[in-house]
Amino acid sequence: MKKRIIILGSTGSIGKSCLDVIRNNRKRFEVVGLASHKNVVELEKQIREFKPKKVSVASDKAFTSIKKAGLPKTGILGGAGGAVELVESLKADVVVSAIVGASGLLPTFAAIRKGVRIGLANKESLVMAGGLIISKAKREKVEIIPVDSEHSAIWQCLNGEPRKRVAKLVLTASGGPFLRMSTAKMKKITPAQALKHPRWKMGPKITIDSSTLMNKGLEVIEAHWLFNMPVDGIDVVIHPQSIVHSMVEFTDTSVMAQLGLPDMRVPIAYALSYPDRWPATGFRGLDISRLGKLEFIPPDKKKFPCLDLAYRAIKKGGILPAALNAANEIAVKAFLDGKIRHVDIPVIIEKTMESTRFLRAKSIKSIIDADSEARQKAAGYI
Amino acid sequence: MKKRIIILGSTGSIGKSCLDVIRNNRKRFEVVGLASHKNVVELEKQIREFKPKKVSVASDKAFTSIKKAGLPKTGILGGAGGAVELVESLKADVVVSAIVGASGLLPTFAAIRKGVRIGLANKESLVMAGGLIISKAKREKVEIIPVDSEHSAIWQCLNGEPRKRVAKLVLTASGGPFLRMSTAKMKKITPAQALKHPRWKMGPKITIDSSTLMNKGLEVIEAHWLFNMPVDGIDVVIHPQSIVHSMVEFTDTSVMAQLGLPDMRVPIAYALSYPDRWPATGFRGLDISRLGKLEFIPPDKKKFPCLDLAYRAIKKGGILPAALNAANEIAVKAFLDGKIRHVDIPVIIEKTMESTRFLRAKSIKSIIDADSEARQKAAGYI
Repeated sequence: MKKRIIILGSTGSIGKSCLDVIRNNRKRFEVVGLASHKNVVELEKQIREFKPKKVSVASDKAFTSIKKAGLPKTGILGGAGGAVELVESLKADVVVSAIVGASGLLPTFAAIRKGVRIGLANKESLVMAGGLIISKAKREKVEIIPVDSEHSAIWQCLNGEPRKRVAKLVLTASGGPFLRMSTAKMKKITPAQALKHPRWKMGPKITIDSSTLMNKGLEVIEAHWLFNMPVDGIDVVIHPQSIVHSMVEFTDTSVMAQLGLPDMRVPIAYALSYPDRWPATGFRGLDISRLGKLEFIPPDKKKFPCLDLAYRAIKKGGILPAALNAANEIAVKAFLDGKIRHVDIPVIIEKTMESTRFLRAKSIKSIIDADSEARQKAAGYI
Repeated sequence: MKKRIIILGSTGSIGKSCLDVIRNNRKRFEVVGLASHKNVVELEKQIREFKPKKVSVASDKAFTSIKKAGLPKTGILGGAGGAVELVESLKADVVVSAIVGASGLLPTFAAIRKGVRIGLANKESLVMAGGLIISKAKREKVEIIPVDSEHSAIWQCLNGEPRKRVAKLVLTASGGPFLRMSTAKMKKITPAQALKHPRWKMGPKITIDSSTLMNKGLEVIEAHWLFNMPVDGIDVVIHPQSIVHSMVEFTDTSVMAQLGLPDMRVPIAYALSYPDRWPATGFRGLDISRLGKLEFIPPDKKKFPCLDLAYRAIKKGGILPAALNAANEIAVKAFLDGKIRHVDIPVIIEKTMESTRFLRAKSIKSIIDADSEARQKAAGYI
């Protein structure tokens, strides 16, 4: 029987790669639902190709426009709650959660409530509400399989291994485009420069996060929740070639690593096929004998303060990671809009965190409130 | 309950490392038997420290000498059949097979016949009689856990993975001391030069095999049998830093790798603890953030013809790998004795193989015969 798939964020970078994996494995999958923000042109193409039962679009304008497109066989949901309604009203085997940012939280939570396996690319939902999501997933016996290449690598390194013998998780980071830039020059970084990632082709938000190392900070928090690992046992190493996607060190000093070309289709296919691995179709792998040189160096925490801010947020816990994430989203948008400098991003996040009063993350509502409050604060610092 | 261990080849490099692992895990192990060739001084120390029930020594002179040492609690066996008798007469949970060369074959086979788990360092027994050993081990439900760092790495990469999705095994090779030496200079290599391995501290036979890449050739054959992999699916890559111990590529293009410092105690401890991993005691692991550069380049098959000779032998099959192994042992000894040049080693092996008539490897006896015959032939070419 075909696996029924819902993709949340289908017109984004991960969503499109996911549909590419499905395109190459038509016999294995049926796309039942797609959720998008506002890219009507892409969504319409996807509907015509994959014929989902239902789609949702968050923006009102997009909703009106797609309604007029003449797609009688596909139900169309709209509004901020459309993605949640989509998840709740469809039968599916896997929900790929690939909406960018905080907007991914509620539909991801809805999928867990329904007991459907999650392929998780939306790291922000774990950053904001990791404790609630993981405990809910445990209760509902839902497997959350990471789609981020780093966490997919760690998942693979842990396959068949005794969990109590894990000594350390080591996340690799490309270092982004400013790895070797001087502190002086970093004050003049333009959005165009920051949007050029040396290794990965990704959406704008995550590309900027990569350039500040905040992406790796968010991934540390994500790894903490996904693998039940204290953050002191999670290290980051700069690996500019992006071939080793992450590693696990065991108590016997052995280190397991997962390697591959930087192609998101590999971890996406893995999340859909796990525990099996399907043959890659449509692309080739590494030529190991021609890898050349792989480099591993410690991160420069002074030049990239976002990494430590993330460690600080998860160590404090409660709503602090949600505040960190909200302030980061506001700051990144302001930088892309030309309102602040690249080096101001960590400053705004730090100010927001310092002015956030510690509260326990006791419900999704308390987290959504903390998110809103931090957004307002961060906007005030711009 | 303590695991009862027999070590075949206890006074060699692997044997001593194995006893070091046991020394640091006294509560987990009991040494019940030790087999040695002739190093009486070391064996006597080992007997006094580990108090085995029985030991064996192959050389007559050593037998006489150890008999006189006053060790009333330890039974002493002698002669060529001593190691087999040792294995047959003792109850054990793991037999570590670490005798160097063809002499390891019969005692390893005896352990399999008894149904005891094998920690296999003696790659020559698999090279010579892989088909017989593996089918016997299957019938007796004996697990053969590799101790070679490369095969231990592959074993670890396969943990928890779907076997039918393995695309390729990739053995790493340091390249030995002559990796970057010119062909002209290679004609003048001295035994002292060849005995200086850049990364691993090992016994003389395997160190010379590393310098010719024959060690990697033997490992290709070993991997073929251990992992039931056609040799065309086994690649070799030169990795001078010896940090990545080997890799497995899966059909989804993902590559799993095992990394660690070049320290034989890690794979030895793994073979003894599998499927668990015990905490390392007495040594530290890698500092991943300071790995620096790891290099991967294709092997130079013209400069190191032994590698292709090994592929050729296993592709022909039958007694050919036994002939390859025997000729190699004779040639290595002749080189160490100053009778031939380093570059003559592959020439002697090739001549021996070419003059060996293909026969099926239908019994241990037929293999022992092929081994003797090839030794005579090889000696004739010196």
